[in-house]
Amino acid sequence: MAEPEQKLANGTTRIDFATDPSRYRHWQLGVDGKVATLVLDVDEKGGLFAGYDLKLNSYDLGVDIELADAFERVRFEHPEVRVVVLRSGKPRVFCAGANIRMLAGASHAHKVNFCKFTNETRNAIEDASAGSGVRTICVISGTAAGGGYELALAADHIILVDDGSSSVSLPEVPLLAVLPGTGGLTRITDKRRVRRDRADFLCTTEEGIKGKRAAEWRLVDEIAPHSRLEAVIATRAREFAGDAEQPPPYPPPQAGEGKSIYPPPLAGEGRVGVALTPLERNLTADRRDYKYVSVAFDRAARVTTITLRGPDSPPPTSAEEMVSHGTAFWPLRVARELDDAILDIRLNELDVAAIVFKSEGEPRTVLDYDLFLDQQAGHWLAREIRLKWRRVLKRIDLTSRSLVALIEPGSCFAGTLAEIVFAADRSYMLIGNRSGDNRPPAAIILGDVNLPGTLAMSNGLSRLRTRFLGEPESCDKARHAVGQALEARAAEALGLVTFALDDIDWDDEIRVFLEERASFSPDSLTGLEANLRYGGPETMETKIFARLTAWQNWIFQRPNATGETGALSRYGTGRKPEFNTKRT
Amino acid sequence: MAEPEQKLANGTTRIDFATDPSRYRHWQLGVDGKVATLVLDVDEKGGLFAGYDLKLNSYDLGVDIELADAFERVRFEHPEVRVVVLRSGKPRVFCAGANIRMLAGASHAHKVNFCKFTNETRNAIEDASAGSGVRTICVISGTAAGGGYELALAADHIILVDDGSSSVSLPEVPLLAVLPGTGGLTRITDKRRVRRDRADFLCTTEEGIKGKRAAEWRLVDEIAPHSRLEAVIATRAREFAGDAEQPPPYPPPQAGEGKSIYPPPLAGEGRVGVALTPLERNLTADRRDYKYVSVAFDRAARVTTITLRGPDSPPPTSAEEMVSHGTAFWPLRVARELDDAILDIRLNELDVAAIVFKSEGEPRTVLDYDLFLDQQAGHWLAREIRLKWRRVLKRIDLTSRSLVALIEPGSCFAGTLAEIVFAADRSYMLIGNRSGDNRPPAAIILGDVNLPGTLAMSNGLSRLRTRFLGEPESCDKARHAVGQALEARAAEALGLVTFALDDIDWDDEIRVFLEERASFSPDSLTGLEANLRYGGPETMETKIFARLTAWQNWIFQRPNATGETGALSRYGTGRKPEFNTKRT
Repeated sequence: MAEPEQKLANGTTRIDFATDPSRYRHWQLGVDGKVATLVLDVDEKGGLFAGYDLKLNSYDLGVDIELADAFERVRFEHPEVRVVVLRSGKPRVFCAGANIRMLAGASHAHKVNFCKFTNETRNAIEDASAGSGVRTICVISGTAAGGGYELALAADHIILVDDGSSSVSLPEVPLLAVLPGTGGLTRITDKRRVRRDRADFLCTTEEGIKGKRAAEWRLVDEIAPHSRLEAVIATRAREFAGDAEQPPPYPPPQAGEGKSIYPPPLAGEGRVGVALTPLERNLTADRRDYKYVSVAFDRAARVTTITLRGPDSPPPTSAEEMVSHGTAFWPLRVARELDDAILDIRLNELDVAAIVFKSEGEPRTVLDYDLFLDQQAGHWLAREIRLKWRRVLKRIDLTSRSLVALIEPGSCFAGTLAEIVFAADRSYMLIGNRSGDNRPPAAIILGDVNLPGTLAMSNGLSRLRTRFLGEPESCDKARHAVGQALEARAAEALGLVTFALDDIDWDDEIRVFLEERASFSPDSLTGLEANLRYGGPETMETKIFARLTAWQNWIFQRPNATGETGALSRYGTGRKPEFNTKRT
Repeated sequence: MAEPEQKLANGTTRIDFATDPSRYRHWQLGVDGKVATLVLDVDEKGGLFAGYDLKLNSYDLGVDIELADAFERVRFEHPEVRVVVLRSGKPRVFCAGANIRMLAGASHAHKVNFCKFTNETRNAIEDASAGSGVRTICVISGTAAGGGYELALAADHIILVDDGSSSVSLPEVPLLAVLPGTGGLTRITDKRRVRRDRADFLCTTEEGIKGKRAAEWRLVDEIAPHSRLEAVIATRAREFAGDAEQPPPYPPPQAGEGKSIYPPPLAGEGRVGVALTPLERNLTADRRDYKYVSVAFDRAARVTTITLRGPDSPPPTSAEEMVSHGTAFWPLRVARELDDAILDIRLNELDVAAIVFKSEGEPRTVLDYDLFLDQQAGHWLAREIRLKWRRVLKRIDLTSRSLVALIEPGSCFAGTLAEIVFAADRSYMLIGNRSGDNRPPAAIILGDVNLPGTLAMSNGLSRLRTRFLGEPESCDKARHAVGQALEARAAEALGLVTFALDDIDWDDEIRVFLEERASFSPDSLTGLEANLRYGGPETMETKIFARLTAWQNWIFQRPNATGETGALSRYGTGRKPEFNTKRT
C-alpha cells in the first residue's frame, strides 16, 4: 500500500523544524515587559505543502512549528515574561483549526505525526504554565473552530468576545467525520470538566456556542464586549503576571510526582535570557551530524543510530557562567540537538523501524553537569533546561519506533542520559571488554535525577518508578546505587537493563533482534509500544495520546472519513459524504 | 462499503447470548462444595459461524458466551462457591486464544464487538473476585497462547506446569500483526506489573516463556511439576476458599470509590442459590419483548427504543422472600433482560444508530426496591443483584451507539433506573403534561444508590460524580434532593438532564436530534462517545477499553493486519505477509 506522497512547497525534501521569529510567516511575537503577545496571522500562501491555501487562520505543520518555536523562545530568550496573550491578527476569526484540504491530502502517517506534534505543542503551552509559571491568556474574537478552539483550550484563561457572533466550536464530527483530536475531547472533559451531555451537544453542533452559554458551560473563562476587550485583557494580563512575587496558583494538570521537585516559579524580573542560536547541522545522505548528536541511517536495515556525546569540559562553576555559555552549555545544546533529530526521524524517515541509542563520553562528567543543575535548581535557566529535557524525553517516549539502547565501553549513560536507557523498549549492555578494546567495561551511573519525577514521563512518574511499578523495592535498591559505576552484571541484577551480553553473543544477538524487529508489522509495534510504555497511572497527557489519539487514528483509517465518499475527502467538493451506517 | 457477512453455523440469523450448562459445547462446570471446576474442552466443530474449526481450544464468541454464563451461574446458583479452578480438558494445550480463521473472516464490526464481549467476560471474572470474593485459580498445563494467556491473566492465581514445554505467550505481534487486545497488554503492565522491557520480550517472542523464568518475571504466580500438580491445586483451592471466615484480602483492582460500600465478602456456607431460569422472550421482526423490557426497532430511522417497566408489586419483606422469588424478583429479572437486549443490539443490529431509553411504572416502587436492597446489603443475593446491575450498566456505558433517555409522564427513572439517564449521552425531559394526558408530570427521583460508587462506572466513579467532575457542589445538591420527585425544571436546574422541553417543542426537537444523529458518521460517534463518557480517572478497565482497544481497532483496520497481504489474512496459508514498512 503506497501512502500518497506530498510535495513540500519550498522545494526541499525534508520538513525542517528549525525556525526563528525573523522567518515566521504566520505568527508575530512581541514582548513588552512581563507580557508577550503572540498573534496568529496565517499567510494563506505559506502552506508547508503545495495544494492548499491556509484560509481563515487554519494551520498545517508549518504553522505549528513556528508556534512551538515561539514558546521555546519566550521561555529561554524572554525569561522575564510571565504572561503570553495569544490572539488572532485577523478580524473575524481566531483560528479555523487544522487545514482540511491539507488533512484530506496527507498520508495517514503524516496525519498521525502532525497530530502528535500539535498535541506536544499544546502540552508545551501547559508545561510553560505548570513548570515555569508562564500563563497563557487566549483571546477569541470571531470563531474558534475545531483545532482553533483546541489551541485555546491549552491556555490558562480564555476570553471570548460577546458580540453575538464570536463562538467556540468543535465541528469535527458533524462536518468531517473525525474527532477533535488535538486534545480537545480530553481537555473538555478533564481540564475544563464540562458536563458530558453538554460536551456531546458542543461536539455535534456545527455552529458552536457563543456568549453567556459558553461561559456558563465552562467552555471559556469569561466573556467581554468588544468595547471593553482591551481593558479586560490588560487587567487579566496584569493579574496573571502577578504584581506580587508569586504567580497565581495553578492546579497541577497531572497526578503523580511530576513537578514536586521544582521550586515554585519565581518572578521573572532581572532575568537575562539566552538566545536560541541556530543549530549547527551537517546533513548528508545518510547522516545528520550536530555537535553532540550524530544520526546515522542504515536504510537497508531500517535502523537509525543516534549517538549522544557527553560534555567535553567540566561544568561551569557559577550560574552566571552557565548563562554566559548560552546555547553552547552542554545540557541545553544536546537537548536541542536530540529534539531536532527525533522530529526529523518522525516526519521525514517513516521507514525507520528502530532507533538505536548509543553514547560516547565520560559518565562522571555527565553526572557533574546533573549535579550542577541540581545545585542551581533555583535558577530559572537550570530549571528551564531540566524542563526542556523532560519535554524531549517525553517526545522520545511518544516516538512510535522501537527504541533500543546499546551500552558499550566508552559510553556515558549516566544521570540524565541514563533516562534514554529507561525510555528504550529494550536495552543491551556489554559484559566486560571487546577483544582489542582496552577501555574499561561499560557502566551506567544513576544520579539523583533518575529517581523522583524530575524527568517524569507523561504519566507523571519517573521512568524508573514506571519500570518498577511491581517491585518498589527495586526503586530503593536503585536509590542506594546512585553514584556507583554499575557494570553490566550489576545493572542487570538491579533490573536497569534488559540483557547483559558478553562479547561472543553481542553482535549476533543484536543483529538478530534488529532484523526481527524490522520484520514485524510496523502498526502492531506502534500499538504494542504505546501500551507497554505507559504502565500505571494515566494523566490528561497520557489520555490525549492514548484514548483520544488511538481512536482518532482508527477513524482516520475508516472509509467514512478518508474513503472516496468519506466526509474528509468530500469536504468542500459540494458533494455530501456517503456513510456505511454500521456501528462498531 | 459492505462488511463481509458470516453465516451462523446453527442456521439462525441472530447470535443468541442465552445458554445454560446443559447446552454447553465447550465448557464443563462442576461444583464440589466451595470449589467449582470449569474445564475448557472446546468442540472443534462447534464454531458459532461456518468456515472454521476451533482447534487447540481456540475460541470464538460462542465459547465465550458459555464462559460468561458459567460465571453468572457460579455467582447466582452456587453462592457457596469460593474458588473456581479454570483448566483445560485437553492434554497439551490450555487455550490457543481467539480462533484466527474466525478473526480473519469476521467483519470489522464483529471483531470489535467480539473483543468487547470477551473483555467484559474477563472483567467479570475479576469482578467475581473483587465483588463477591470468588477467587479464580488458573491451571496451565500445555500452552496458553495469546487470548489463552489473556484468559489466565483474569484469574487471581496462575499455576504453570513446569514440564519443559508448558508456556505462556502473547504471539499476536510476531504471528498476526495485531495486539494481545483482550486485556493482555494492560494486565501485563498494570495488574501483574511486569517490567516493560520484559513485557516487550514476551510480546515479540512467538514461543513464549516457560518454567522458572515465567515465575521470576511475574507472568505466573507459581510453577509446579506434573507430579505435584493436583496436590498444589488442592492446597491453593483450600487456601483461597478460606477455611477461615474471610477470604484472603485482595488488592482492589481499581481506584476510586467503586467498592467501598460493599461489606467484605462473606463465607459462602449455608447459602442457597437461585436458579437462573431461561429468559422468556417473544421475538418478532421488529420487536423483542421480555416481561419488564421491550425493544422496538425503527429500522428506517435507525433508532431502537428500549422501554423498561417498573415493578408491578411492592418489594418482598424479607431476604427469604427475595430468595424464594428467584429470577422473578424484579431487580434481577429486569437486569438480565436488559443485558440480553443490549447484547442483541450490539451484535445483531449493527445499523442501529441510537438507543432511546424510556421507562414505565411507579418511581416510588422502584425506589422501594432499592431501599430493600440497601437494607439487605449484607445478604449475598442482594449484593449479587447490585453487582449484576453494575455490570449491566457498565455494558451500557460501553455500547457504541448513541444513548438517549426520554423522560416522560408515566416514566419511573428513579434510583437504579435513574442511572440509565446518567449513562445516556443526552437526556430530554418533558415539562408538564402533554395535551390529552392526565398523568402527573414526569419526575426523576434520586436514591442513595445514585451517589456513591454502588453502581460505579468502569472509571471507579459513580455516574453523577463523573457527570459533575467540574462542580462537586452539584453532587451535594443532588444528595440533598434524594427522595424528592424532581420534575423537569428542577431536574434541569440540578444538572440531571440535558434539556427540559415543553410539549410544543418535544416531538420536533427529538425527531430532529435523532435524525441528525443518524446522519453522522458512525465511526466518529463511536470515538466521540468513547471519549466523552469517561472523564476523570482511568482504571485498568478503562485502560483496556480505551488505550488498548482503540489501538487494536486501529490495527484491525490496517492493511498490514487485515489487507490482502496482511498477517491475519495470510495466517495459515503458508504465504508470508507483506508489510508496508512505514511507521506512523
